[in-house]
Amino acid sequence: MGSHEFDAATCLTALPSGGFSVDISDQWSGLASVNGGFLLTTCLKALGSLVPFPDPIVVSGFYLRPGNPGPAEISTEVIRSGRTTAFGQASLEQGGKEVLRATAAFSDLASVSAEFLGRVPPKLPDPAECRQLQSISGITLGRRFEYRSPVVPGWLKGTPSGDPTAEFWIRFADGRDVDTLTLPFIVDAAPPVVLELGGSSTTIELTVHVRARPAPGWLACRVITRYVSGGYHEEDVEVWDSAGTLVAQSRQLALVRPY
Amino acid sequence: MGSHEFDAATCLTALPSGGFSVDISDQWSGLASVNGGFLLTTCLKALGSLVPFPDPIVVSGFYLRPGNPGPAEISTEVIRSGRTTAFGQASLEQGGKEVLRATAAFSDLASVSAEFLGRVPPKLPDPAECRQLQSISGITLGRRFEYRSPVVPGWLKGTPSGDPTAEFWIRFADGRDVDTLTLPFIVDAAPPVVLELGGSSTTIELTVHVRARPAPGWLACRVITRYVSGGYHEEDVEVWDSAGTLVAQSRQLALVRPY
Repeated sequence: MGSHEFDAATCLTALPSGGFSVDISDQWSGLASVNGGFLLTTCLKALGSLVPFPDPIVVSGFYLRPGNPGPAEISTEVIRSGRTTAFGQASLEQGGKEVLRATAAFSDLASVSAEFLGRVPPKLPDPAECRQLQSISGITLGRRFEYRSPVVPGWLKGTPSGDPTAEFWIRFADGRDVDTLTLPFIVDAAPPVVLELGGSSTTIELTVHVRARPAPGWLACRVITRYVSGGYHEEDVEVWDSAGTLVAQSRQLALVRPY
Repeated sequence: MGSHEFDAATCLTALPSGGFSVDISDQWSGLASVNGGFLLTTCLKALGSLVPFPDPIVVSGFYLRPGNPGPAEISTEVIRSGRTTAFGQASLEQGGKEVLRATAAFSDLASVSAEFLGRVPPKLPDPAECRQLQSISGITLGRRFEYRSPVVPGWLKGTPSGDPTAEFWIRFADGRDVDTLTLPFIVDAAPPVVLELGGSSTTIELTVHVRARPAPGWLACRVITRYVSGGYHEEDVEVWDSAGTLVAQSRQLALVRPY
């Protein structure tokens, strides 16, 4: 998959220290900084090269400083490699300052079947019958994905709805299929739903559960923020694949910022 | 609060290395091992002594091995101490093997007001009108808390309901009020709701958002597992205080185990 944008942008160079260097381009940025899910997945890619299991099953990243386009170094630690699960940690630094601390567990999700489903996938019209949502000027990240929704979000029309939820289809714009490595990017790749309350968002911590390997094609996302208090909000994302399988759940704690 | 069970049980001794030692008693265990929330909060207590902010706002713990009663050592690292937020990491080891890796952010939640509430607290009868749920023989953790519920859970009567949800009141049995340090313990202190599907649970990762300082008294919990697949399940907990304020949210990824 080396010809796809994401894979080229996260090309890691092994360092004599045992870590990796990566050159972060300006094509993966949100309003103010490099997207947090992109940085998290870059760290996962480094860790994934060190553990004997192919699939991240849970990852938590703490965002210490904004990430910027430019060179970065990733140091890694395999914490424990067991019979069915391996744990690792990665730290992404820029200019000698730590930007992201990520911890993850890896296992093998080759044969996963659903045993209990308390909710069904989002009921979305076929992507071909949905509106293509255009990215906002200056947000380069938005051009790396296609977003399709039955409705144009209120905030995007200049009239926030007051309802911080969203359901939409998403895929990489260049046709790269999403895998278990990139699901933790997908959950952070759409605008935050607190935009429907008039605010924007800065992630403090993002946890992603990867529940299954996604089938090729569009992914359906269900996003909700239930509580804003003290200037903080959580955001929960579910990702369902084109076969109707739940493939990821995420939750982040974030600061509400002016938009 | 040194006279309360929790505080005595998490008494930390500073080591020359900069870490802490703690002697874990057999009074905080679930079915097979020491409770994960107890270990997480013990790590938070160590970190809290090193950072200039009183309240954990988000913590993520990865469970590498089961914790057992007996001596443990906690090593700590202050990752970053900023103007409004400090980040730290703690590692709990027993017998030279790492049991828990915890990362946390701390800040000050002195003046938090709700800005958007997408859901209301659980509608529970007054604790005095609820049933006192008895702990299960052999689970010492259950004697450290009081649990009150309007109904006896199906699994506890030997007839799992098939509905992995629960709403109940909880407080420390010895009257200790819950604070922001112990909320990450509370979210893991009740039996897992997958018991209503006939299974039990082993935590892989637990993330807790602490959203406000709780008022004294009973706490109302709302617990749900939405998806079981591939032998994994998530469990979400909300904790509301006696004044009707959302004080914590948690999510864990866990393995389903035979019960």
